[in-house]
Amino acid sequence: MVITSAKHHLPNYGVFDEFRYFVPGDTLPVFRVPAAGGQSVEVAIAICEDLWQDGGPVSVCRRSGAGLLAVPNASPYERGKDDVRLDLVVRRAREAGAALAYANMIGGQDELVFDGDSILVAADGTLLARGPQFSEALIVADLDLPAAAPAEVPGDQPVDAEDGTVITIKRVTLPPAGDGADATQDPGQAFWPRLPDPAEVYAALVTGVRDYVRKNGFRSVILALSGGIDSALTATIATDAIGADNVHVVLMPSRYSSEHSITDAEDLVKRQGVHAVTIPITSMVDAFSEELTPAGFPATGLPAENLQARVRGVVLMGLSNAAGHLVLTTGNKSELATGYSTLYGDSAGGFAPIKDVPKTMVWELARWRNAEASRLGLTPPIPEKSITKPPSAELAPGQLDTDSLPPYDVLDALLDDYVEKDMGSAELIAAGHDPVLVERVIRLVDGSEYKRRQYPPGPKISQKNFGRDRRLPITNRWREHCRPA
Amino acid sequence: MVITSAKHHLPNYGVFDEFRYFVPGDTLPVFRVPAAGGQSVEVAIAICEDLWQDGGPVSVCRRSGAGLLAVPNASPYERGKDDVRLDLVVRRAREAGAALAYANMIGGQDELVFDGDSILVAADGTLLARGPQFSEALIVADLDLPAAAPAEVPGDQPVDAEDGTVITIKRVTLPPAGDGADATQDPGQAFWPRLPDPAEVYAALVTGVRDYVRKNGFRSVILALSGGIDSALTATIATDAIGADNVHVVLMPSRYSSEHSITDAEDLVKRQGVHAVTIPITSMVDAFSEELTPAGFPATGLPAENLQARVRGVVLMGLSNAAGHLVLTTGNKSELATGYSTLYGDSAGGFAPIKDVPKTMVWELARWRNAEASRLGLTPPIPEKSITKPPSAELAPGQLDTDSLPPYDVLDALLDDYVEKDMGSAELIAAGHDPVLVERVIRLVDGSEYKRRQYPPGPKISQKNFGRDRRLPITNRWREHCRPA
Repeated sequence: MVITSAKHHLPNYGVFDEFRYFVPGDTLPVFRVPAAGGQSVEVAIAICEDLWQDGGPVSVCRRSGAGLLAVPNASPYERGKDDVRLDLVVRRAREAGAALAYANMIGGQDELVFDGDSILVAADGTLLARGPQFSEALIVADLDLPAAAPAEVPGDQPVDAEDGTVITIKRVTLPPAGDGADATQDPGQAFWPRLPDPAEVYAALVTGVRDYVRKNGFRSVILALSGGIDSALTATIATDAIGADNVHVVLMPSRYSSEHSITDAEDLVKRQGVHAVTIPITSMVDAFSEELTPAGFPATGLPAENLQARVRGVVLMGLSNAAGHLVLTTGNKSELATGYSTLYGDSAGGFAPIKDVPKTMVWELARWRNAEASRLGLTPPIPEKSITKPPSAELAPGQLDTDSLPPYDVLDALLDDYVEKDMGSAELIAAGHDPVLVERVIRLVDGSEYKRRQYPPGPKISQKNFGRDRRLPITNRWREHCRPA
Repeated sequence: MVITSAKHHLPNYGVFDEFRYFVPGDTLPVFRVPAAGGQSVEVAIAICEDLWQDGGPVSVCRRSGAGLLAVPNASPYERGKDDVRLDLVVRRAREAGAALAYANMIGGQDELVFDGDSILVAADGTLLARGPQFSEALIVADLDLPAAAPAEVPGDQPVDAEDGTVITIKRVTLPPAGDGADATQDPGQAFWPRLPDPAEVYAALVTGVRDYVRKNGFRSVILALSGGIDSALTATIATDAIGADNVHVVLMPSRYSSEHSITDAEDLVKRQGVHAVTIPITSMVDAFSEELTPAGFPATGLPAENLQARVRGVVLMGLSNAAGHLVLTTGNKSELATGYSTLYGDSAGGFAPIKDVPKTMVWELARWRNAEASRLGLTPPIPEKSITKPPSAELAPGQLDTDSLPPYDVLDALLDDYVEKDMGSAELIAAGHDPVLVERVIRLVDGSEYKRRQYPPGPKISQKNFGRDRRLPITNRWREHCRPA
């Protein structure tokens, strides 16, 4: 017996485009399941978004009299969404007057990571079971469901839903189950421990990387290790996702590289046991300079800095092509927002594990990951110096990020308000951000949309990532400025 | 007096995302305009998509009694859309029982090109005026509109529209116009010549390039000239868009470059008068090989071919950074579909003028452009040899595109059916395509989605381009295959 039921509410916001492709459903299927003593229980089904919006199938569930509302979900991870989800499930169970089983998918697909975190509540909202985050599990729980009305099953029943649509309750009687399959079921675990915030974000990143690699037919990754925190965290995520033996790092010192950029990178290699190769870039950079200088290419400044980043990009892509590794890009969200990266240089790659992680959270995750290792009596995977030293791209002598950007705590607070909260210039200033900085950062963010367009995908962890969540034109006249050349 | 009227039908297909961002309107504003002899005429307003869909404001226009329906549009260019548009305007005028003025925007924004082609028809569908394509113009025409009913203006009038919604007809009386402003108006031109198909596509590409350059604050472009047809056509479009003096080309011979690759490129430079510089890439390629060989990088094969393309990408980006030129990418749609390009190599750049042009049409446009020049007694801008020689990427000795791809007329017919017409494998075979080729091309197209994701924008000329028209995941299990490494 096949019952097809389509989702009623088709999300068309954020990363979702469902209204483009699907036709909304208008049924609430209710299955009458034979139970002990010749009685039956009734189970209704609603799908994902139907739980989040008012009206539709969920709003007529109480009318159906079903004892359990089962809701399959593919609900992408976002920080803090798990709390919202529990509140929602409790509220809907009470509205429906039915126990509610919220079953969520796990795994990654491109930018989305599905986090599991399945939930079972009773009709009064009492939490009965909660599954693990970011891993598969079979959750077994006994529910004392009300017996269905003994009368014969009524036919299709159209009901006015709260959103002004008509939902048809469709009842189907299932055949009796086989011999005692359920009676012998191990009751199993009902409650899994909850992950604290840094652990949860970190698990999302690891899951995103693991599944992008695996589901696209790769076995190994390669990335540039600079000794800085971004590449150190990216390498650690990769190691946790697919194992050190499948992680290849490349050290690419230039004439501007500090002593510690090499020693810190080597320290990480030793701690994690990843494969490492060192390819100094000076001879290649010089080969370009020699050919390009007569054509007006300058010896210093932005073009010369970008050249170093691009030579590194070519090295990585070459080694990737030769051995079939997926290239991981190491840029963070603060950098992506402000355009502080080089197209086809440090932004080159197939997947960008921390593209939705602001710089301040990069440090937080690194500290958390090291503390977690210490707690378990293991070697912290990230060199302390990579965490504590002032950030630098090392593309010019003595260069520091703070030469041209404000401190990251100031910058990230502003970016969060502008990018995630969509606040305008006046609102940002009213919220206490420095007006000069507001002006400058808005110009940086707006003017680097073209770079983000060519950036590889990476796991979404925020409410608004730079992928399908935020769709803006490159060409615009929001402000009368020219993009810096 | 300000009247605000929102679009009723919010397109959410193709490149459009309007349903995400806007709330639909439910009014038909009707302006009562004082005319000679104390009488008035009535002009109704509908917006763009409202003309294309049944129901909504246009469907109640006849009920309003307005003599003219004025429709402002931002309707993006697609091949053949102008014919559809005229048929639509004629049909809607007859339905509304009103003359219809269809006014369309011109100019480019990112991937969209608006083509103008404004239309005026009488209430019986007779064509009264038609504006130019891809250029601004003031179209002046005398219309003999029916006098509005002399009674006082009724208030808001709710009417049931054909799509089941209620549209409110809102009447507003305009003050009398100033002294004879219209009486002295030069009647002007009513009909502009229509562009034949290749001219129309070519004009769309030129408009797209010109406006992307100008509106993003650039003055000049730079591109790699290989002697082949793709870069020759791209250079010609750039020259027509912003003038030869603003076009910079780079010849980058390698050890695999044929003699004619240089001479044909030099021939184009002479014909068009663009700025040219020659940067041989051998020394830079060798610098990479020397450093990478010990790390397992092979001397021949795909990695070595990609390396050459990437060295060229770095040269172009370097010269772009040094002088502030926008880099134009020269890939065509057949190449983009099958993934026959190198990430960060020949695909590097800020704008891709021919990314929506299949290879067979690249040749057609080149031949048309040369013939057009000859017709006007001018030097054909594209060297004949660039058009007639067999296509090659020249990344290995004696390499030809046909070594690994079918002839382009066969390939393009298949790509058109798969990509633009969305036909599945069985349908493609039933349509007469070779089953082995169908299998192979589907795998190529599906497996190169990740490359398209990082490709620069370029003008849309087809019904379905590779930008926002076609939204597909990279990670999928439509077929059990691994992407080639």
